[in-house]
Amino acid sequence: MIKILAKRAQIASRELANLSTETKNKVLADMSAALLANQELIIKANAKDIAQAKKAKLKPALIERLTLDEKRVREMADGLLELTKLTDPVGEIIKEWERPNGLRIQKVRVPIGVIAIIYESRPNVTSDCAGLCFKSGNSVILRGGSEAFASNHAIYQCLRQALKDNGVSEGAICMIISKEHAAVDELLKLNGYIDLVIPRGGEALIQRVVEISRIPVIKHYKGICHVYVDEWADLNMAENICFNAKVQRPGVCNAMECMLVNEHAAARFLPGMLKKFKQSGVEIRGDEFTRKIADWAKKATQKDYRTEYLDLILSVKVVKDVQEAIRHINIYSSHHSDSIITQNQKNAEEFLRQVDSACVYVNASPRFTDGRQFGMGAEIGISTDKIHARGPMALEELTSYKYVVRGNGQIRQ
Amino acid sequence: MIKILAKRAQIASRELANLSTETKNKVLADMSAALLANQELIIKANAKDIAQAKKAKLKPALIERLTLDEKRVREMADGLLELTKLTDPVGEIIKEWERPNGLRIQKVRVPIGVIAIIYESRPNVTSDCAGLCFKSGNSVILRGGSEAFASNHAIYQCLRQALKDNGVSEGAICMIISKEHAAVDELLKLNGYIDLVIPRGGEALIQRVVEISRIPVIKHYKGICHVYVDEWADLNMAENICFNAKVQRPGVCNAMECMLVNEHAAARFLPGMLKKFKQSGVEIRGDEFTRKIADWAKKATQKDYRTEYLDLILSVKVVKDVQEAIRHINIYSSHHSDSIITQNQKNAEEFLRQVDSACVYVNASPRFTDGRQFGMGAEIGISTDKIHARGPMALEELTSYKYVVRGNGQIRQ
Repeated sequence: MIKILAKRAQIASRELANLSTETKNKVLADMSAALLANQELIIKANAKDIAQAKKAKLKPALIERLTLDEKRVREMADGLLELTKLTDPVGEIIKEWERPNGLRIQKVRVPIGVIAIIYESRPNVTSDCAGLCFKSGNSVILRGGSEAFASNHAIYQCLRQALKDNGVSEGAICMIISKEHAAVDELLKLNGYIDLVIPRGGEALIQRVVEISRIPVIKHYKGICHVYVDEWADLNMAENICFNAKVQRPGVCNAMECMLVNEHAAARFLPGMLKKFKQSGVEIRGDEFTRKIADWAKKATQKDYRTEYLDLILSVKVVKDVQEAIRHINIYSSHHSDSIITQNQKNAEEFLRQVDSACVYVNASPRFTDGRQFGMGAEIGISTDKIHARGPMALEELTSYKYVVRGNGQIRQ
Repeated sequence: MIKILAKRAQIASRELANLSTETKNKVLADMSAALLANQELIIKANAKDIAQAKKAKLKPALIERLTLDEKRVREMADGLLELTKLTDPVGEIIKEWERPNGLRIQKVRVPIGVIAIIYESRPNVTSDCAGLCFKSGNSVILRGGSEAFASNHAIYQCLRQALKDNGVSEGAICMIISKEHAAVDELLKLNGYIDLVIPRGGEALIQRVVEISRIPVIKHYKGICHVYVDEWADLNMAENICFNAKVQRPGVCNAMECMLVNEHAAARFLPGMLKKFKQSGVEIRGDEFTRKIADWAKKATQKDYRTEYLDLILSVKVVKDVQEAIRHINIYSSHHSDSIITQNQKNAEEFLRQVDSACVYVNASPRFTDGRQFGMGAEIGISTDKIHARGPMALEELTSYKYVVRGNGQIRQ
């Protein structure tokens, strides 16, 4: 069954690769309109999921993420419409050159083919991911969480109708209806039909996908992000950035989980900063130095340095110099986003060069790691992998390339 | 044991990422010199492998590939020296832009980190791959075939000496000495330490790696390459290209394995072409049409269309039009390199756009798919994957990137 679905997606992907930008934008606009037109149906389906979730005693936070209302449906519809304004990456000539024998070589951007997205809870992922894959010319196979089953299916029906209305193969957007784990396991072994898997969700989900998959996986692991306040930092700026990085939205992957402070700045910086955190309800888990300044702080353990709190909790450590900060980050960071605050050019450049993370910042909040904030217009996630795509992934990152070679009879000597 | 090795490689990779181009070139030149200086030792070690191989009754072709003589050692040394002349990809600013809030973003090329290469038979792969990984700033873990054990080890000692002499961590180039399969299995699960696996060898090896690995794999599968002779082909050119594509070096992945001929060109083209192939000892396996013209041809089966002969054998099929050719290729090709011969612009563009292969050609031999022929100066292989790298892989394809973001106090609203 899953194989038939994947075959359909593959056949559709060949058609999709050659659709004009105009047609793709028309379909996206129709998808957007279909979501709005079927708003009631979607919210009704969502109510079923919510009732089920309450019966299963899911956590309130999870239920909140699952919930769709008029505003959220409108946001999904707006998201699809926004995609029509973004540049179509397909067909872009990335590079071209001529060889001494007269062969003209072009490196041309093409879709990847068939992408499987395996995700949890938020139903808006259904339309966001389907839209991004469609605009970049890829077929998509969607497999949402069982807790959002009815909502995802209702959204999917709207997208499918828009494909149908425009004469585009419905294989372009597929959804796995089975709630069985076995369906995903089967999917993950279809490496002849599916070109890429993107899991979106918790660490357990991602690890399970990596364990089973025979298809390349781009992982969007957790964010254990650091801000290092250097000896030469503008301490006012440091306070603003650290506060923003922790407090503005603590539940996201680009929030700060660990603050490193240079020992020569600590006495000047920490008292005011920690007080400000305390006033905002941030629990501090500090090393010895930190706890001397704030005796109310808990003791940080090795485990703390490896934890993505996603909450108003922060580990704090005082370090000797920028090199110790870099070493700590390269060991404990999840290689997502890390920041240095300093007015010292040399320290800044050392940090930027040596910290091995997808996004490295000087004098700015790591909270900017985001496709929209980077100017990509949208994002399918933040890759913590180094293969194919790293950091925010948007349309360009959903493409591959091929070499187009034009000759006039050249043969190999 | 393997984990300790991988950890050492990871630590070295951080040092390697920041080595200057000058230092890297110096080390490469020293590696090259070390191979020449230890030529006798290498050839002596190779003699052990050869003796073992003969005792084990390996095929003559395999023994030939395994054999090292002065010329082959010199070729390895030259290869390392050539790498010093190639542009260092590390540090290249791929793209830069400024955001409305003043954040300046650079997309900067960085090494991948630690790359494991798992390969068979040819000992020159040891120095070729080590050199490419080193120049691109990556640590490498090498695991050659047991039949080339002594040769690989002798080459490795030369490379290591050059690292040592220049004060570079020896973890930069590691070799797995164990002959056990279990060592590779352990290696392939170290996804916290190794960033990429590149298997180089037969299909069975690659499939085994994909099956076991938890680390991203870039596959270099077989080449089932096609040349399609269109109705509008210059038949003289077509004959030259097809002959070159099959006969010039039949044992390589970019050689033609299947020739497709338009039915309106077949009667004019096939008699002369097939005669020429016959004279050069090429065995033809044809469809019905082909066998009407050449009654000496064998019958082609479905299996033939899926076979990489790597030999003087060719399957031949007559097709109705360019669309049938494209359909056949997209089903049977290994998505490596496929060519159309035509003077018809429209057919050429249709073929180039719709054939889903790493390299698509018009009026040229697919034999040009090669890092050096493409002007990349070297290659680590030809990727048949669509993720990260497709087609010839050289220095640039052995890199990732990171985003370097410079601000002056920006916080997220």
